[in-house]
Amino acid sequence: MLEIAELPVVDAHCHPFLNPGELSVEAFVDLVALGGGSQRFMEEGGLAFTSAVRTELQRVKRDTVYFRRLVRDLAAFFGVEPELDQVLERRNAAVRAGYRGYVGRLFRDAGIVTLIADMGYPQPPVDLATFRREVPAGVVPIFRIEPLIARLLAEDLGWPEFRRRFDESIANALQRDGYRGLKSVIAYRTGLDVSPLSRSPDQGLMAYDGVKRGLGGDAMKRLRDHLLCRALELCIEYDVPMQIHTGVGDVEINLPYCRPSYLMELLRFPAFRACRVVLVHSGYPYHREAAYMAHVLPRVYCDVSEGIPFAGHAAPALIREVLEMAPLSKVVYGSDGFALPELNYTAAKLAKQALGLALGQLVEEGMLSKTEAEEAAWLILAGTARRLYRLD
Amino acid sequence: MLEIAELPVVDAHCHPFLNPGELSVEAFVDLVALGGGSQRFMEEGGLAFTSAVRTELQRVKRDTVYFRRLVRDLAAFFGVEPELDQVLERRNAAVRAGYRGYVGRLFRDAGIVTLIADMGYPQPPVDLATFRREVPAGVVPIFRIEPLIARLLAEDLGWPEFRRRFDESIANALQRDGYRGLKSVIAYRTGLDVSPLSRSPDQGLMAYDGVKRGLGGDAMKRLRDHLLCRALELCIEYDVPMQIHTGVGDVEINLPYCRPSYLMELLRFPAFRACRVVLVHSGYPYHREAAYMAHVLPRVYCDVSEGIPFAGHAAPALIREVLEMAPLSKVVYGSDGFALPELNYTAAKLAKQALGLALGQLVEEGMLSKTEAEEAAWLILAGTARRLYRLD
Amino acid sequence: MLEIAELPVVDAHCHPFLNPGELSVEAFVDLVALGGGSQRFMEEGGLAFTSAVRTELQRVKRDTVYFRRLVRDLAAFFGVEPELDQVLERRNAAVRAGYRGYVGRLFRDAGIVTLIADMGYPQPPVDLATFRREVPAGVVPIFRIEPLIARLLAEDLGWPEFRRRFDESIANALQRDGYRGLKSVIAYRTGLDVSPLSRSPDQGLMAYDGVKRGLGGDAMKRLRDHLLCRALELCIEYDVPMQIHTGVGDVEINLPYCRPSYLMELLRFPAFRACRVVLVHSGYPYHREAAYMAHVLPRVYCDVSEGIPFAGHAAPALIREVLEMAPLSKVVYGSDGFALPELNYTAAKLAKQALGLALGQLVEEGMLSKTEAEEAAWLILAGTARRLYRLD
Repeated sequence: MLEIAELPVVDAHCHPFLNPGELSVEAFVDLVALGGGSQRFMEEGGLAFTSAVRTELQRVKRDTVYFRRLVRDLAAFFGVEPELDQVLERRNAAVRAGYRGYVGRLFRDAGIVTLIADMGYPQPPVDLATFRREVPAGVVPIFRIEPLIARLLAEDLGWPEFRRRFDESIANALQRDGYRGLKSVIAYRTGLDVSPLSRSPDQGLMAYDGVKRGLGGDAMKRLRDHLLCRALELCIEYDVPMQIHTGVGDVEINLPYCRPSYLMELLRFPAFRACRVVLVHSGYPYHREAAYMAHVLPRVYCDVSEGIPFAGHAAPALIREVLEMAPLSKVVYGSDGFALPELNYTAAKLAKQALGLALGQLVEEGMLSKTEAEEAAWLILAGTARRLYRLD
Repeated sequence: MLEIAELPVVDAHCHPFLNPGELSVEAFVDLVALGGGSQRFMEEGGLAFTSAVRTELQRVKRDTVYFRRLVRDLAAFFGVEPELDQVLERRNAAVRAGYRGYVGRLFRDAGIVTLIADMGYPQPPVDLATFRREVPAGVVPIFRIEPLIARLLAEDLGWPEFRRRFDESIANALQRDGYRGLKSVIAYRTGLDVSPLSRSPDQGLMAYDGVKRGLGGDAMKRLRDHLLCRALELCIEYDVPMQIHTGVGDVEINLPYCRPSYLMELLRFPAFRACRVVLVHSGYPYHREAAYMAHVLPRVYCDVSEGIPFAGHAAPALIREVLEMAPLSKVVYGSDGFALPELNYTAAKLAKQALGLALGQLVEEGMLSKTEAEEAAWLILAGTARRLYRLD
Repeated sequence: MLEIAELPVVDAHCHPFLNPGELSVEAFVDLVALGGGSQRFMEEGGLAFTSAVRTELQRVKRDTVYFRRLVRDLAAFFGVEPELDQVLERRNAAVRAGYRGYVGRLFRDAGIVTLIADMGYPQPPVDLATFRREVPAGVVPIFRIEPLIARLLAEDLGWPEFRRRFDESIANALQRDGYRGLKSVIAYRTGLDVSPLSRSPDQGLMAYDGVKRGLGGDAMKRLRDHLLCRALELCIEYDVPMQIHTGVGDVEINLPYCRPSYLMELLRFPAFRACRVVLVHSGYPYHREAAYMAHVLPRVYCDVSEGIPFAGHAAPALIREVLEMAPLSKVVYGSDGFALPELNYTAAKLAKQALGLALGQLVEEGMLSKTEAEEAAWLILAGTARRLYRLD
């Protein structure tokens, strides 16, 4: 067990959130869960939202090990019993007394100093200035390409203008508005099996024409694939990292095509080798694939967000399994937090415990010296993200 | 280490078996193994079944960790050395003295009170009444759709009649004959990549016509896909669970298409969201996929059968990995036992040891309280299956 | 923890290497790394090979847990601090004093007595006689089919002559030149999804014609698939094992199609059931698939090379996870070592520690007796390979 509770934390993958005010127990549960269904999800399924169905959904969310741990972490923070209603009472009192101060105490306790925030979720976007004002931590915004694609598709543009506006919007984000990287969630759309040949300008032209004329087929996939290639090119040009969602996520994920291995052909293609690419979530539960890619592709990185905290007690195994092949200096911590600062908090606490455990074992097993393990913890929690996003 | 040896056990996925009488060592080995080949398997491969080949097959089966554990469990039960011949001698003596009494002692020692039995294996079917008479435990039968499909295909029916008889047979099973759920092994046939569009009546008509006229192509797959959708609809109508085999199994499995992730598009489709679906075997070794689906799809459940006991020492890891994302109240224990009661026995013993270990670790790691862990053990061993199959 | 440090080791999968002489620190790092990129890889990616890029590549390679462990193992061997420059200094001195003696001391310390060497890597081939002279261990060569295919394709042959020469070259290797098995790396080419129907002579003829006439399409895949089937037939005829690469490897791997599960249909086909097949690397990180195949297919074996040592601390988990389903007598140790004897050394040291740990746990968990665990260690380290390759 390594002692790392005091280390500073850069949360290298999360989402912005605003003060939601006081919350009922049910609303809190709904906000912190990754999945488990919503009223709308069940009603679309033809189920009247009776109190039995409401209870069923709440049960599904409260019965994950992740949720139980969240309650325990917050109970320890507030010094109360790990009972949800007691925790919520104290939480609401703290928010009443001052949201920013409360977030500050949470973040100080967990050591969180910087949030690298994918502004593409939620939609419509959270106002960056308000987020910054409310959260006492550095905020580094990341620009997601899919909302831009949706916005441009909604306008009546020719392909040259579409493409010009795509490039220009990204240039503005990176050069004018302080964004420090791009993000794609193509794994939620048409999947990660993107051929590097998609970067051809003709593919963009032909696919866009097909989409505009409603030809169907795989026109939309070919358009998204083309624009992902373009985003990689722009990341190289502006020297910023590209984050790509890999692995599971909320219920909308394209599950058969979210495996990081589908990106291999794209990322080893000569034209994209110079790009620094973060395989967001390390593709959990396919994280050994992501780790392998970080091993053989010099500029591919893994983050361990989402698995931490939503896979609960998986945290030490996730770190251990990613480090089987990913270099110690190519793994970054993140929470995938959204909606509430308590998510970022419990993720950071869990990650420190898990890193202490996993790296401590590597020392015991004669794989690393204690110094090497401590350096690795620092790199994963903050150092590598600082280098990757040029935070100094 | 949680103390749970005394908890009652509902074996939520297994198969019926009749008293095989006394057994030679070789026959016993052949009966309890999941795989490892048979005389017929080798002879089809052009190998004369010499005594060397016979020895080779026996070795493959006896050299699994699962088999070694089975012998140790039975040796402890009989109070003899863990030597196969000593165990068999005592077993045969116990069977001679009274099969039902012997099964009763096994089940009492392991706490087994109820068997939820997929009657579709073996074929031809075991007589349910005889099984019930021979086994001193509650027996809850489950109706497998593939033998029904085979039976109806063998008759010369038009599609309307085929379809009527399909529905009627299921209605009879569920309403008249006491079956409590349906089961599909489409993962052994055409695979789990079933589009929800397959529920269209026209797909059934067109596919059935193609099968009957010998058109080949994917007619049989489209027919099976359609009938799986119909089975889901009937499960909703009669309010019973649908069991779907996922993951590996015996040598006939459709390995590339047995991953639970292929079911995602089907199970999140609005028309099927109301159905309670058990991902049988949690898709081992793809159980993290199944667990994710149980996390984001409110009515999808995992069982941990087959992995327990056939993956031997995997049991604690399997439970731990499934619980990373599956809610504590959406995982059920099962053995996948068949042929011999000793299988149900060793699986239950192993599961209790593994649950005690895995849940005990979660307490040590600060993920759950001891009370939460004990409640989870009860839910997994019996509580959730009781609720799901309305055993009260 | 089982005491097995003194057991003899057959390295059942590795590659030949010649004395490279003294090495700079950078050259040593480049030689022992599995991946992480090369000057050429980066330059093809449009990156000038500045000193910053050179440093970046070295960092990627030195920051794997595997590399750190290698340094620690060698430091212990030489009795110096685990500092790379100190280790290299001693290593170079030892090589200067006599390469063969140095290799002998390494191998004696690790217990390595035999190397089963896939002579197909590196290319052009290492001279077998020189390798044998330089290395004080038994060398058992394995014949890789892909260099033969490349050589025959480069000549202007008709199909009957191509096919005759293919068979003849393999016959010569196995009957005249002392090779003890075949090897395929089709997972690096067209992938493992090989239909057993590919063995049809007409498929060979048609595919070869397509390749020769430059028809493109899948002609090359169909040719490779056909020749893999032919290799399996020849292995049956000459009664030698077939090694098939599965799972990840260097950066050229066909990642989406390297999963062992794609081989299932081929290997259970009656015509190939008699062939002893080693799933090289157990398909890491898909090793649970390989283990399942070793469970249900009587003549399919797993080796644990590459994962050991390149996945570092994965070694105990890899062994444990493979043994979940693979019989104890169907798993063989290997290193995938190449280029330097230090690789074979660290792999063997790591494997013994990992086996001691993993098998020791199985004893503690009541899965195996101590005697069974010790026998399993011996089988994995040497016994099964001795039987499989008829080393007695």
